Amino acid sequence: MNCRNLDHNSAREKHYPLDTIEFFAAFPADLLKQLHASARRVSYTKGQVLFTQDDPADWFYMIESGWVKLFRETLDGDEVILDVMPPGYVFGETTMFESGVYPFGAEVVETGELTAYPVAMLADFVKGRSDLALAMLQHIVNKNIMKDRDIEHRTVMNAPQRIGCFLLRLCKIKQTPPVILHLPYDKTLIASRLGMQPETFSRALTRLQQDTGIRIRGATVEIENMGKLITYTCTACSNVFPCDND
Amino acid sequence: MNCRNLDHNSAREKHYPLDTIEFFAAFPADLLKQLHASARRVSYTKGQVLFTQDDPADWFYMIESGWVKLFRETLDGDEVILDVMPPGYVFGETTMFESGVYPFGAEVVETGELTAYPVAMLADFVKGRSDLALAMLQHIVNKNIMKDRDIEHRTVMNAPQRIGCFLLRLCKIKQTPPVILHLPYDKTLIASRLGMQPETFSRALTRLQQDTGIRIRGATVEIENMGKLITYTCTACSNVFPCDND
Repeated sequence: MNCRNLDHNSAREKHYPLDTIEFFAAFPADLLKQLHASARRVSYTKGQVLFTQDDPADWFYMIESGWVKLFRETLDGDEVILDVMPPGYVFGETTMFESGVYPFGAEVVETGELTAYPVAMLADFVKGRSDLALAMLQHIVNKNIMKDRDIEHRTVMNAPQRIGCFLLRLCKIKQTPPVILHLPYDKTLIASRLGMQPETFSRALTRLQQDTGIRIRGATVEIENMGKLITYTCTACSNVFPCDND
Repeated sequence: MNCRNLDHNSAREKHYPLDTIEFFAAFPADLLKQLHASARRVSYTKGQVLFTQDDPADWFYMIESGWVKLFRETLDGDEVILDVMPPGYVFGETTMFESGVYPFGAEVVETGELTAYPVAMLADFVKGRSDLALAMLQHIVNKNIMKDRDIEHRTVMNAPQRIGCFLLRLCKIKQTPPVILHLPYDKTLIASRLGMQPETFSRALTRLQQDTGIRIRGATVEIENMGKLITYTCTACSNVFPCDND
């Protein structure tokens, strides 16, 4: 693990500063500056566990590069993957309301850099200012709606559509076609995230390519016709693209 | 629909007053009194739709008797059941952060009485007092954790265990065995809520009875040995009974 302090300016120059997240964009500049001044940049390698379920939640993280999975373990020892997140995602920021411990474990699944921010400082800000408490309420309700959608997808979408939705989640920023995405190497992991067996995932990927014309070579996905992928995927959902609460 | 105003005292005498919900228990008495004074008691019959997705969210509801399902519809017209709730449950209370519209539809699945409270009044309270905003944050984070658990269960629990968990959710209040539960008549609905086909549900119910010794006759469930049901169900989950965030 390689840690170093960040000053405000260098954090601002990064591709994924904290204030790209709508919730943090609501923060006044002086509070964001305090958060950035207390941040640590941390390098992690694939397979490294950041924390496990029920560890004291001292830090929340932003993914600068690499991918991170969130998981839980049942008493029987089975692993459940709650999310697999690309750069630009924040996790652990609501732990102040979760008995001060992480309600899940986190493991790096593609080597990268994270920025860690102190949960206690965020908690002080949120508990001390009602405007920030309200912004956090909005943030958490949006997360909640995404979870409802996840439950919905597992009920009504077929496997190719669920993969299509996973890809569309990575296409939030407006791009001119063709859109090129880079997946983490380990497709087994994406299958798990989507609640599928690896064989189902593999068959569904072939079907998705046939039906929508997207091309997948190794870890690279090329989407020539976004509209076709959106129609194919989103008609099986109660929401329209782009997902407003993502 | 049969509406009448409620005064504070009569609401307090009910079996399921609003302040049995931890979030509302944090409210000062004068604010709770205002909510109760603006409440309407409403009788609904089975099959009646309270509202549909994207309707303006003017009221939130507490179930006094009967059962209510929350659902969404995909663009293709498929119905997804998000929850099926017994008496004592509140829904629609977070709509002030959901663009002022219901993010789901609600339909009465067993005839009963609801109490409706004005969302605008609740929104004023929460937005005007940071202690209530923080209480609501805690409330929503708890809901979030339950949704994570729902996703987890759909991944790692077998069908009998998922039914066992559904039954245990109804056993929150301490009772001396045997515990007697009354399910809504329509088991197809519970199957849907748990993401199962009716045939799977039927087979799983038989298996659950064999494995745990519970007895199901029509809509009545008798649990002689709670410990056995808990061990059978909860070892496949990352949480222990009783679920602290339920």
